[in-house]
Amino acid sequence: MPNWLLPENIADVLPSEARKIEDLRRVFLDHFRLYGYELVMPPLLEYIESLLTGAGQDMDLRTFKLVDQMSGRTMGIRADMTTQVARIDAHLLNRQSVTRLCYAGHVLHTRPSGLHATREPIQIGAEIYGHNGLEADAEIQQIVLGCLSLAGIGEVRLDLCHVGVLKAILDLDDTAKKHEDVLFSLLEAKDIPAIDQISRDFSAPVRQALTALPTLYGDASVLVRAQQQLPDIPGVRDALHELQSLTTLVGTAQVTIDLADLRGYHYHSGVMFSAFVPGLPNAVARGGRYDHVGEAFGRARPATGFSLDLRELARLMPVAERKGAIRAPWSRDPELLLKIAQWRSEGEIVIQNFPGHENEQDEFDCSRTVVFDGQQWILQNVG
Amino acid sequence: MPNWLLPENIADVLPSEARKIEDLRRVFLDHFRLYGYELVMPPLLEYIESLLTGAGQDMDLRTFKLVDQMSGRTMGIRADMTTQVARIDAHLLNRQSVTRLCYAGHVLHTRPSGLHATREPIQIGAEIYGHNGLEADAEIQQIVLGCLSLAGIGEVRLDLCHVGVLKAILDLDDTAKKHEDVLFSLLEAKDIPAIDQISRDFSAPVRQALTALPTLYGDASVLVRAQQQLPDIPGVRDALHELQSLTTLVGTAQVTIDLADLRGYHYHSGVMFSAFVPGLPNAVARGGRYDHVGEAFGRARPATGFSLDLRELARLMPVAERKGAIRAPWSRDPELLLKIAQWRSEGEIVIQNFPGHENEQDEFDCSRTVVFDGQQWILQNVG
Repeated sequence: MPNWLLPENIADVLPSEARKIEDLRRVFLDHFRLYGYELVMPPLLEYIESLLTGAGQDMDLRTFKLVDQMSGRTMGIRADMTTQVARIDAHLLNRQSVTRLCYAGHVLHTRPSGLHATREPIQIGAEIYGHNGLEADAEIQQIVLGCLSLAGIGEVRLDLCHVGVLKAILDLDDTAKKHEDVLFSLLEAKDIPAIDQISRDFSAPVRQALTALPTLYGDASVLVRAQQQLPDIPGVRDALHELQSLTTLVGTAQVTIDLADLRGYHYHSGVMFSAFVPGLPNAVARGGRYDHVGEAFGRARPATGFSLDLRELARLMPVAERKGAIRAPWSRDPELLLKIAQWRSEGEIVIQNFPGHENEQDEFDCSRTVVFDGQQWILQNVG
Repeated sequence: MPNWLLPENIADVLPSEARKIEDLRRVFLDHFRLYGYELVMPPLLEYIESLLTGAGQDMDLRTFKLVDQMSGRTMGIRADMTTQVARIDAHLLNRQSVTRLCYAGHVLHTRPSGLHATREPIQIGAEIYGHNGLEADAEIQQIVLGCLSLAGIGEVRLDLCHVGVLKAILDLDDTAKKHEDVLFSLLEAKDIPAIDQISRDFSAPVRQALTALPTLYGDASVLVRAQQQLPDIPGVRDALHELQSLTTLVGTAQVTIDLADLRGYHYHSGVMFSAFVPGLPNAVARGGRYDHVGEAFGRARPATGFSLDLRELARLMPVAERKGAIRAPWSRDPELLLKIAQWRSEGEIVIQNFPGHENEQDEFDCSRTVVFDGQQWILQNVG
């Protein structure tokens, strides 16, 4: 096999794509900063116990394992950064006040999540610790919308869901609860016939609620329908009330409800959301509340946040327009060097041709060239 | 063992340090760009054959190995990005013209290079492919000096060396050549008594040259001494001539010669350099020519470049001064939200207090707070 071949679902990022990713990375991190989020950089490697703390079996299977030569213990390469950032909040920073953190970095997956999915997403995200009110969720959602708008994506749909709805319904029926995992997948797929099939032995209100859930999506009026079709129990009431308050707090027309969009159901603890944009069938960003995340590190703090894959988002972006560069000859003439330094300090890209390479085309669209007019070095338009 | 404990020589980067690293990363990448370098992002994982192509045993031992579940083949996590970028030039871009590439990313080492060294450096660097003249080496060195100056480091010393000197000397004596590896270490350590000991059976000119090498360091006048003390053979002459030309090309007083500074001897092919700055005993940046690097990927192109560890450099930087932030109350009053958006668009950090957290101290030095004066929201200085 040729040695330049990369593993499946692993790819180099070439200049035009790399530039888009780098630009998005900066725009997002700067945006987070304006809201008071502090950047942290957790390591690529951790002991497996820390890395998989509170994570499900799914995350375990996705995580590459390694033996640490220095301790003989098993380490993992992060497949997700959320737990790492929670560990930093809980253990390292250990502040009493509300803490806003953000991060950006590569994660690795043993297997791709889909046929064409990368095994090396570039995860970027923001988290709020220490406030259990919906204001924190609203701020996170506002930031997601802000980031996507800065990325030039006009049309964003924010789907809201709530873990509490399904949890409360399943709490009504022990038989149903035993099928939690299967039901979760069927709801995710909105497979009503299969839900109808599996719920035959469930109590009537639970069965009715489960078959209703996949139909409960659309604008905020869904919440009214949900009140009618779902059991009138505290868990459901509270969840629907939270969703209602959140749609008001976020306050844009782009917010919809989808009570069966349960991805992340296992580690989330309250409101969840997914952001959809034109051109991508899957959600481009996901987030929500996971108040128990710090527990395993000795400090349960309310937590909410979001993350997305910059690599996937970058694919939606047009290639950044290239600023025409300046092509300069190779010379050590101090006057030329001074001029080149001056242009560069003004933000111009100046490419000095090495001797013998004067007539090469390069990837930069050189719109101007530097020539000596007999008295001084001047810029001349090309073509 | 507590689950927040990290492996040895692996650490989280907390906000103040993360900010310095992020700032340096941007300043360097922007600087590269002004010279026409294009950003590429090679993957963290590759098949071991590609990753270790042309690399020595040292790199093999430093590289974490993994089994790819999708192919059953062994993959490695990059311990260095240079070969990866050479692969991109040779195989993916495959241009005929001079190509300037740059990169920034995490690498992992199975063991630290020193007691306190990190196992997860953040490598940043730039490479030129396709020009075999010293002009390319001079440009790379100029960029290193430019980056360090932008990082606020005034005093930089650039040590030049040349692989050709030792290679040519050893070519004179087969016995000496057999001891290449040991000699290389002894020269690196400038251990003259041990060199004298080991070279007893070598021919007289070789022995004399080897014991002279560790003394040949200092300003450009070293090159004159070297001409007198080293054998007058083409290999040595050419190397000394190249060093002479390069000191002229770079043309600053900060350039010194050290003919025994041979780190990288095994994979370099010509001029090598190390940049030293106050506060760090080891070189902060290293680079040089390695013309054979693309060979294994089917395309040998002249190549020269440099890299450094952002994490190490950041430790030398003072903590970035924090711009005083604005503290705002939680409210959905459209007028307040409009003002907050306005301030943020002007680059101000505005932190909205969540209800119940009004009196918390946060890490941002909030110099101003937003209050309602009965008619409108206004900024008020704190304290």
